[in-house]
Amino acid sequence: MDKANIHLALVHFPVYNKSGEVVVSSITTLDVHDISRIGRTYGIGTFYVVTPLKTQQELVERLVGHWLTGHGAEYNPTRKEALLKTRVIKSLDDAVTDLAEQSGEKPRVVVTGAKRVPNSIGFETLREQLREQLNEDGPVLLVFGTGWGLEKNLIGNADHVLEPIEGSNGFNHLPVRGAIAIILDRLLGRF
Amino acid sequence: MDKANIHLALVHFPVYNKSGEVVVSSITTLDVHDISRIGRTYGIGTFYVVTPLKTQQELVERLVGHWLTGHGAEYNPTRKEALLKTRVIKSLDDAVTDLAEQSGEKPRVVVTGAKRVPNSIGFETLREQLREQLNEDGPVLLVFGTGWGLEKNLIGNADHVLEPIEGSNGFNHLPVRGAIAIILDRLLGRF
Repeated sequence: MDKANIHLALVHFPVYNKSGEVVVSSITTLDVHDISRIGRTYGIGTFYVVTPLKTQQELVERLVGHWLTGHGAEYNPTRKEALLKTRVIKSLDDAVTDLAEQSGEKPRVVVTGAKRVPNSIGFETLREQLREQLNEDGPVLLVFGTGWGLEKNLIGNADHVLEPIEGSNGFNHLPVRGAIAIILDRLLGRF
Repeated sequence: MDKANIHLALVHFPVYNKSGEVVVSSITTLDVHDISRIGRTYGIGTFYVVTPLKTQQELVERLVGHWLTGHGAEYNPTRKEALLKTRVIKSLDDAVTDLAEQSGEKPRVVVTGAKRVPNSIGFETLREQLREQLNEDGPVLLVFGTGWGLEKNLIGNADHVLEPIEGSNGFNHLPVRGAIAIILDRLLGRF
């Protein structure tokens, strides 16, 4: 499979907060930078930043604009290159629709998280599937939550749940930008 | 090898700036958090934050103190756990000496970077060496640069230079916190 047909979504709603309530989490601008750079390193397609809040969408658009066309483009051309495929979108459903329209086929949605769930797909299995093009030309969307993780219906509606990264002695508190780096390397490193 | 005998150093001097001058780079507090969490996830030993600047050392000490004994310890116990092994030190030499005193043996120093150099050690080779305990009980110190990379004499004096993470189409601009996540996973993931 062409790695450009593998896409990322960073979801800020619906996610849980520390108390287990469903909330909109805030954009962390550094996540946008880091995940764009990591995505570009592994040659993936679009990176969707998902938030329903207009002001937060504008924040991301301003950030991306600064590096694509503003002073930043001249100051740091590699940052520009990293952000070329970063897009804000209001919901995960819209990202799915966008990909379906682009490629004429619904994406396979793979959600990630720190919790182990029954029937999760393993890293090796998913890597093999991506490598062997079992999915032919259809796009794949890897979904990552912010805050205290993706809301359960969003997980339930996905095509696959990726197994979590196992920490030493059960410690399982990676920053999402670190988890994405590790997951892309496991799935796509030295493809 | 016990993973607790593998240690990290994040070096803020001597490193290059954008113009190729040797400088002291500034502490990024988020690096301290992220790398502590990643280190804890992989069960490593000490994480040395290396800076010669007193005010920058104090900044890190205040940050760590907040989460270990301040309000943060109660608010987020897992963050406390992640930061337990984070220490500020004034030079890489001091980190080497500290490890030698702790374990009675000089650490093997492995530097990392984005550039390919002759005679670098590959990920698989280093992973095998760590796994097979070829190094017996001696500690290993993995060294990461900030800014535009580690100064060349520091690289020249290391026992090994780890091969770089290859990006897609030659793109090689990972954030250091992302590179550390990937490198620890390659060397120590599912050990």
